[in-house]
Amino acid sequence: MAVVAAAPVWSVDPRTGKQREQVAVEATAQEVDQAVRAAQDARAALADRTVRAAFLRTAADLLDEAGSAGAHLIEAADAETALGPVRLTGELARTCFQLRAFADIVDEGAFLGVVIDHPDDTATPPIPDLRRYKIPLGVVAVYSASNFPFAFSVPGGDTASALAAGCPVVVKAHPDHPATSELVASVIRRAAVQHGIPEGVLGLVHGFEAGVELVKHPLVAAAGFTGSVRGGRALFDAAAARPVPIPFHGELGSLNPVVITEAAAAERPEQIGTGLAGSMTLGVGQFCVKPGLVFAPRGEAGDSLVKSLTAAVSDTAAGVLLDHRMRDNFIAGVAERAELPDVDAPVTPGAGSEHTVSPGFLTVPAAHLAQQGGPHDLLLEECFGPVTVVARYETADEITAVLSRLPGNLTATVQLSAGEAAGEGRGTEILAELTPLAGRVLVNGWPTGVAVAPAQHHGGPYPATTSTSTSVGGTAIERWLRPVSYQTTPEALLPPELRDDNPLGLPRRYDGRLEN
Amino acid sequence: MAVVAAAPVWSVDPRTGKQREQVAVEATAQEVDQAVRAAQDARAALADRTVRAAFLRTAADLLDEAGSAGAHLIEAADAETALGPVRLTGELARTCFQLRAFADIVDEGAFLGVVIDHPDDTATPPIPDLRRYKIPLGVVAVYSASNFPFAFSVPGGDTASALAAGCPVVVKAHPDHPATSELVASVIRRAAVQHGIPEGVLGLVHGFEAGVELVKHPLVAAAGFTGSVRGGRALFDAAAARPVPIPFHGELGSLNPVVITEAAAAERPEQIGTGLAGSMTLGVGQFCVKPGLVFAPRGEAGDSLVKSLTAAVSDTAAGVLLDHRMRDNFIAGVAERAELPDVDAPVTPGAGSEHTVSPGFLTVPAAHLAQQGGPHDLLLEECFGPVTVVARYETADEITAVLSRLPGNLTATVQLSAGEAAGEGRGTEILAELTPLAGRVLVNGWPTGVAVAPAQHHGGPYPATTSTSTSVGGTAIERWLRPVSYQTTPEALLPPELRDDNPLGLPRRYDGRLEN
Repeated sequence: MAVVAAAPVWSVDPRTGKQREQVAVEATAQEVDQAVRAAQDARAALADRTVRAAFLRTAADLLDEAGSAGAHLIEAADAETALGPVRLTGELARTCFQLRAFADIVDEGAFLGVVIDHPDDTATPPIPDLRRYKIPLGVVAVYSASNFPFAFSVPGGDTASALAAGCPVVVKAHPDHPATSELVASVIRRAAVQHGIPEGVLGLVHGFEAGVELVKHPLVAAAGFTGSVRGGRALFDAAAARPVPIPFHGELGSLNPVVITEAAAAERPEQIGTGLAGSMTLGVGQFCVKPGLVFAPRGEAGDSLVKSLTAAVSDTAAGVLLDHRMRDNFIAGVAERAELPDVDAPVTPGAGSEHTVSPGFLTVPAAHLAQQGGPHDLLLEECFGPVTVVARYETADEITAVLSRLPGNLTATVQLSAGEAAGEGRGTEILAELTPLAGRVLVNGWPTGVAVAPAQHHGGPYPATTSTSTSVGGTAIERWLRPVSYQTTPEALLPPELRDDNPLGLPRRYDGRLEN
Repeated sequence: MAVVAAAPVWSVDPRTGKQREQVAVEATAQEVDQAVRAAQDARAALADRTVRAAFLRTAADLLDEAGSAGAHLIEAADAETALGPVRLTGELARTCFQLRAFADIVDEGAFLGVVIDHPDDTATPPIPDLRRYKIPLGVVAVYSASNFPFAFSVPGGDTASALAAGCPVVVKAHPDHPATSELVASVIRRAAVQHGIPEGVLGLVHGFEAGVELVKHPLVAAAGFTGSVRGGRALFDAAAARPVPIPFHGELGSLNPVVITEAAAAERPEQIGTGLAGSMTLGVGQFCVKPGLVFAPRGEAGDSLVKSLTAAVSDTAAGVLLDHRMRDNFIAGVAERAELPDVDAPVTPGAGSEHTVSPGFLTVPAAHLAQQGGPHDLLLEECFGPVTVVARYETADEITAVLSRLPGNLTATVQLSAGEAAGEGRGTEILAELTPLAGRVLVNGWPTGVAVAPAQHHGGPYPATTSTSTSVGGTAIERWLRPVSYQTTPEALLPPELRDDNPLGLPRRYDGRLEN
């Protein structure tokens, strides 16, 4: 057998396109296997809920430290993502908040879904003693996102929720931030060891092939993914084609439509125009919830809004995308869109300096988007980066016709006037039109910014997600669990979670009644 | 285009193998499309929870009537399944109980998963007003089981839970009971119409190809299936390969292992032997939870148990399987297994009279099942019908070695002595070994009989089910819903479920706290 040199993994500075340092080598199939087996062996150490809540809190504390001034984590992340220290510091704080939120969820224990039924001979058929709760699925594969080196990567929502569920994790690092991934993984492992949990509880592998090996590994029980439709669908297909298929919770892509009513445009054209500019250019347009299709009315109010948008986008500086491939795709993508018939570019998006891109937006008559199969269908595909498409409509029917053609979305937004928000006009109808399209519906807000909260839902119909789950918020933990029921099992053998006297004080359904 | 005569769908009497009557014709792709579109159009009528709870209760009432003496439903079901009027009457009662249980679940509303968060500026990032609940996925395809013409077919758990969730249903009828399927569908449609719901809320199609068309239909949003590994996996693969993949909740197959400890065998050999005989021959062995692999100790206690099993199985009458293909498969399957080296048949299973099969069981040294790739691997595959395999073990390690090789199961059972049940010996260890294998773990019971109860879990690791869901019990409703969050949405536009004043009195999580 020929010896093949391991492929190097480089940290690259997107501001210059230059290699910064070699961080690692791509993992071989054997190394993926080792990482998964080490994770599998860490399961028992995660079984105790008290231990894992403490582990999550320590991980947050150590990450906070690592992100503090002079500790180089933010510096390293900025050097390979160009996201800037302010944004990265905020993202790390969010990530730590999220780890602590999951620790609280572990402590509360509602996610265990405890249900206890005592025997009932009056039921048809009779009910025996039955006690159900949820147990961890096993090793979870997490595929990091390019655009959030902390919040949707090694220490992000997928990892935090999986560890909270009791599942060890093997992360496939994103090639846009391998150095950050290694640094963060070492911090989390240090937290684990402090609580007697083996380092293997968090594996980290680099390389495209390693990612494919990972989802096929027999001991991998589920996967979480944030990325593109193409990459996500390939992994989803691999997960479904396994001899034993596994749940694949992927967040793939979203257009995030925004409807601006005539009355809203008339009421606050400038506020909406500048708000939209801020949302679509935030993080150089690299948010999965960036508004990518906006319905604005024809006529004076809409013109005024577009004028404000034009001014605000023109004032927005060029920025550096996460890598040069994305920059190439953005420049080609916006050029192809701008060349379509009847498409105008009040602010032309495209290449900035050698390493940057300039934000911009396109306009198109909404009616052009209503018919399937035309060249304008391209405008209904996500374009990653600081660009949006403003569809100018004549009638509400045009909006309905385009919305009915959209694939699933993470978010859908409506801008209403004060009167419409109070119940006048078509507000209710518009919400009813938007709800089937998305996992989160916003009124008079902007979709960028995804709060870590119990009521959050960051998911939506395909391709927004490949399942009905969320990757942000408390219920994200549900992805990594499966129920098991114990029938006629003596008290002496029951786990404490399922005992009548409820020694752990868990919320539960007891003989049909909810108990907190 | 040549005109092809529609393929007839016959009701067949398995007691004679003769066609009883032509019930329908197989649905064309166009007819499947019509059924799905009619179901889609019925969604709005199901939106009101009060209406759909009332509909489910009326469906139960009308089915009760249809199953009463002289009303011919039981007669028709018996004529094409040979399951006998006693069993079928009980199954119908269970089915009606289940419909009413889901009506209660609809009324309670906990399944909506309401979560309300008010703005919190102290969070990182700040939390806006967010309100989440669950909405119906859309049209659900239900694939009926052969072995339960009521409880896992047209009016069964998949249909009841989908309707309860607010999802219209199109059922693919099982060819073993097409007449029963038509009768029951007409009853449920009658119930729908009484509540102003269009008949299309429950579609029914016949034919293998129609089933394939159904899972591929763009308006079908999810599927439920109970049947074989082969058929279920083919449909699962089709669901995953769609341009827009959909959740496929399939229950495919299960061996349902039973471990009998040495002490249990010594304590009550006769009770366990006769109990096992009853469970494995119940419904002519056609239960998905039939114990198919039983670990009994070598030596005197085990011999005594096998003696009791022999006596009880010998005393069990031959029976008619659901169709002749199953009979052929059973006869060939048990013959192939019985010919394996060191396999004995204390009671030989196989052909009875021309249309029946005789129950029996096989024994094999457990050590033969521990090594992968040998001829005895066949004994670890489910054999549908009245047969089980008793693996005689020398040591607990042999049991562990075989259990570690098993695919997922619906159930796993252990028979313990009184002392072990009280905490002596290896009871806890055995439960820990069985839990990863199954969705329901039983102590000193038998897996046949699946109670309709809040704490029930009828599912398990693949191939027991293709997802982490259950098809029986209250939580089965979760399969047909997806969450949606409303952000900064004015009270006037919020659905009543999400309003602060909780006009519907729903259980919810409100600013982090659980409220009942």
